[in-house]
Amino acid sequence: MAKIKKQPRPKAQTPKGFRDYFGAEVTKRSAMLKTIADVYHHYGFDALETSAVETVEALGKFLPDVDRPNEGVFAWEEDSDWLALRYDMTAPLARVYAQYRNDLPTPYRRYAMGPVWRNEKPGPGRFRQFYQCDADTVGAPSVAADAEICAMLSDTLEAVGIERGDYIVRINNRTVLKGVMEVAGVLDPNDPEKFAAERGIVLRAIDKLDRLGVAGVEALLGKGREDESGDFTKGAGLSAEQVEIVMGFVNADANIVQEIIDLEGIIESQGGDARLLGNAVYANDLDMIQLLGREHKESAVRNKFAIKYLSRIVEKSSIGKKGVSELDEMSELLDAQGYKADRIMIDPSVVRGLGYYTGPVYEAELTFEVTDEKGRPRQFGSVAGGGRYDDLVKRFTGQEVPATGVSIGVDRLLAALDAKGQLRHAGVGPVVVTVMDRDRMTDYQTMVTELRNAGVRAEVYLGNPKNFGNQLKYADARNAPVAVIAGGDEFDQGVVQIKDLILGAEIAKNATLEEWKDRPSQYAVGRDQLVAKVREILDGQG
Amino acid sequence: MAKIKKQPRPKAQTPKGFRDYFGAEVTKRSAMLKTIADVYHHYGFDALETSAVETVEALGKFLPDVDRPNEGVFAWEEDSDWLALRYDMTAPLARVYAQYRNDLPTPYRRYAMGPVWRNEKPGPGRFRQFYQCDADTVGAPSVAADAEICAMLSDTLEAVGIERGDYIVRINNRTVLKGVMEVAGVLDPNDPEKFAAERGIVLRAIDKLDRLGVAGVEALLGKGREDESGDFTKGAGLSAEQVEIVMGFVNADANIVQEIIDLEGIIESQGGDARLLGNAVYANDLDMIQLLGREHKESAVRNKFAIKYLSRIVEKSSIGKKGVSELDEMSELLDAQGYKADRIMIDPSVVRGLGYYTGPVYEAELTFEVTDEKGRPRQFGSVAGGGRYDDLVKRFTGQEVPATGVSIGVDRLLAALDAKGQLRHAGVGPVVVTVMDRDRMTDYQTMVTELRNAGVRAEVYLGNPKNFGNQLKYADARNAPVAVIAGGDEFDQGVVQIKDLILGAEIAKNATLEEWKDRPSQYAVGRDQLVAKVREILDGQG
Repeated sequence: MAKIKKQPRPKAQTPKGFRDYFGAEVTKRSAMLKTIADVYHHYGFDALETSAVETVEALGKFLPDVDRPNEGVFAWEEDSDWLALRYDMTAPLARVYAQYRNDLPTPYRRYAMGPVWRNEKPGPGRFRQFYQCDADTVGAPSVAADAEICAMLSDTLEAVGIERGDYIVRINNRTVLKGVMEVAGVLDPNDPEKFAAERGIVLRAIDKLDRLGVAGVEALLGKGREDESGDFTKGAGLSAEQVEIVMGFVNADANIVQEIIDLEGIIESQGGDARLLGNAVYANDLDMIQLLGREHKESAVRNKFAIKYLSRIVEKSSIGKKGVSELDEMSELLDAQGYKADRIMIDPSVVRGLGYYTGPVYEAELTFEVTDEKGRPRQFGSVAGGGRYDDLVKRFTGQEVPATGVSIGVDRLLAALDAKGQLRHAGVGPVVVTVMDRDRMTDYQTMVTELRNAGVRAEVYLGNPKNFGNQLKYADARNAPVAVIAGGDEFDQGVVQIKDLILGAEIAKNATLEEWKDRPSQYAVGRDQLVAKVREILDGQG
Repeated sequence: MAKIKKQPRPKAQTPKGFRDYFGAEVTKRSAMLKTIADVYHHYGFDALETSAVETVEALGKFLPDVDRPNEGVFAWEEDSDWLALRYDMTAPLARVYAQYRNDLPTPYRRYAMGPVWRNEKPGPGRFRQFYQCDADTVGAPSVAADAEICAMLSDTLEAVGIERGDYIVRINNRTVLKGVMEVAGVLDPNDPEKFAAERGIVLRAIDKLDRLGVAGVEALLGKGREDESGDFTKGAGLSAEQVEIVMGFVNADANIVQEIIDLEGIIESQGGDARLLGNAVYANDLDMIQLLGREHKESAVRNKFAIKYLSRIVEKSSIGKKGVSELDEMSELLDAQGYKADRIMIDPSVVRGLGYYTGPVYEAELTFEVTDEKGRPRQFGSVAGGGRYDDLVKRFTGQEVPATGVSIGVDRLLAALDAKGQLRHAGVGPVVVTVMDRDRMTDYQTMVTELRNAGVRAEVYLGNPKNFGNQLKYADARNAPVAVIAGGDEFDQGVVQIKDLILGAEIAKNATLEEWKDRPSQYAVGRDQLVAKVREILDGQG
């Protein structure tokens, strides 16, 4: 037989690094985005939706993270222009603000949510399209704007279901770090370009503290670091002394806690009464610790100690002192609004790798542990981050416009809530009205309509009705709580069969137990009792 | 002075054919999508979100509408593959169903909403990115699936705020049209490829009835048509007799109404009692008209008359008779569920231009008139359409999978509701707490926090506070209902000033009227009365 050559069929596949989302995955995300939008709106932020496509010119030809290659966007040529999919929400905001600045209120508070695209190598759990959910304030120079974003971030996390204590918003200020750089001798205020490369390496090294640990960061600050695979990353080339200064900053968190603990020791040695210390340097602090009790050492007083600690580190740098003063102001504002260090904490190790931040930076981390599919404990880590960037709009207008904002990683946050079981159950499926007699479709459809009109999610089986077993399998696949069954006999008698599928499954599971054996899970009721009986079963299932 | 050459700045502009959506434009659309999703979900449909990017191979290299050029997508090369932005929701659904068919329930009811992209020449009101909102049932061969989609479409339109009577869902069946083609001699059941080109022209001509009128369609069915600009479109080349047969189908709607009116004349001539006609051919119909009353002639009986009329037209074609029988079955199902011709009406002029429809087709039209910005009356026309397509999945699997679905044009529907004033008001802005003394930011921020905690949308002014007039202008631009004001005097006295901005604007407008002149719109209240007073004013504003 001669072979007939066939046209090759197209492959039914998503492109590499893209994926589909089904059912509850979609609706859970929508519900979360709605909750977040409500908080943002409550804070006075307005929605903005830009198109997915921008000119490459407006986006800038680079991703903000300098670690990534320039080719990080999906782009194509049109006539003589290049168009590209947005890689974040901030670049389009800068474009919008520049384009409409005369019509927008100043300051302009806006939120934006939607997918962004990155032309990167996909990996496990790393997709080339993902959701971001941003809030930014453009045109507000004071740290009150940053404080507001941090308070809002805290409220948002609680609104979506992360309990207080299960997250922490860490704040810092790039200007403090600049001061540290000056003290360490890698920043010359009179020659801002000098040591720029070194500072870039320092910044990125600090940002990797979580992943590489103290020794790894120290290596990157010094000569460089060889990873497990043998690859070598060039370091900033700092001397041991310089490294020590920077690490004093990076490790500030641990040092601050140690200081508090030491002070508590002093109090105890004084018989537990800080007031007996008289005019000691830290008398006020000791008082505070004393009054608040030991369990509060991570909250109310912590931020004050952090400010004190950082002041000491940068006391020789006027830039650094400005940064600490900003951080202090932010912390005071938050404190007065009731956001203590159990929610929003100063943490000098937060620097955010992106080159464009110019002042306050912040990051929200989930602090609870979950177990992965192999039973190993793991932490979720960062789910949101942001900071102040004053130069983005300048690209377009030449005018410096102060701005600050946060971006929430929606997919990570969803995964965290899912792992914690905080998300509303995937939801039961619809009631399925089965089809015994295909000539009675009108009757089945009428049953469905009655159920829907009574507020019950319901559908008729629309496949080939010949094999009734397939219909019950379908109801099972749909996660249906109830099946409605009516054939010739039922129609003749004016009744319908109503099957409780949840109870039925329970009975099947416990079939060997005496007390389950004879329990019915299917009921014949009068046709006019259809809705009432279905409701009764659904109510019983909770 | 020597000129310094500057780097050219990027232009702050969206690419041609793209646009930004601000504030209420975004939130109104979100609210509508949520409402639609709720109806779809209630009918047992599950959410699906595919990625924006597909392989060109999976999408097919063409837009479904054959009038459009092949280059209708935004595409780019990656390695040896071509990727593209989806141009609709149906092509990705076909890909998903082929890819996951073993894991999905059959039939698979799914809904999808989001932007799609078309690489077309933009025009006024015609954008290259727009929203679609689809519901489809895959794997259900019977017209019960089509009837369900039409009922759901009707429910959806009412759920988003289109009142019954302000819309009509028109249904038809391509198979009836095939029968008409056979009767007219442009379809040979034994040689399906014969006259394919002619049929394509006929289909597209009928689809343009709205725009071109009867004469225009007749011209396209015959020799061809010259438009106002002098451009000539080639016709299908049908003879006058053939054209008459096709137009009998296209004009069926008017003919059906005329038949009903004629019958009413007969009843009246019989003294108003149809029963006196005895065994007349239309005795049953006359009875119906009689009993339902004249005002119902456009509803309950209309679909029955349409079936009767179409049966006559295609009585010589077995294909045509099958189509009429399907249409009859669909109409009976809908009728039994309470969807009469005042909501879902058989209309033979609905053919939907897309080549891929194979059976029932449907379209929702808004029937109310609105006036455009120049005061001219205009109709909104079609806001949704769809039908049965049985071949889309076959491309991937070789297996024919029956499917039917609808797509709602979200932007058009929103515009219609906007024009009708059915949409919730854009919403008042936040309460604005102004800043008289920048050193008291903590106090202002605390006021805002109190208001927010009490459920009041509120924000502090975050711009440069030096010019107080600018702050009031800002409150105005934000559409703020209330401003809170406190300077040194107020803080000393423990009070705040609360200004009713709505009343203030009213007073300013009526400044010449005696009774308005001395009305206060600003109140000094104790600091602890801030929230209570703001609430009181907001409640008073409604």
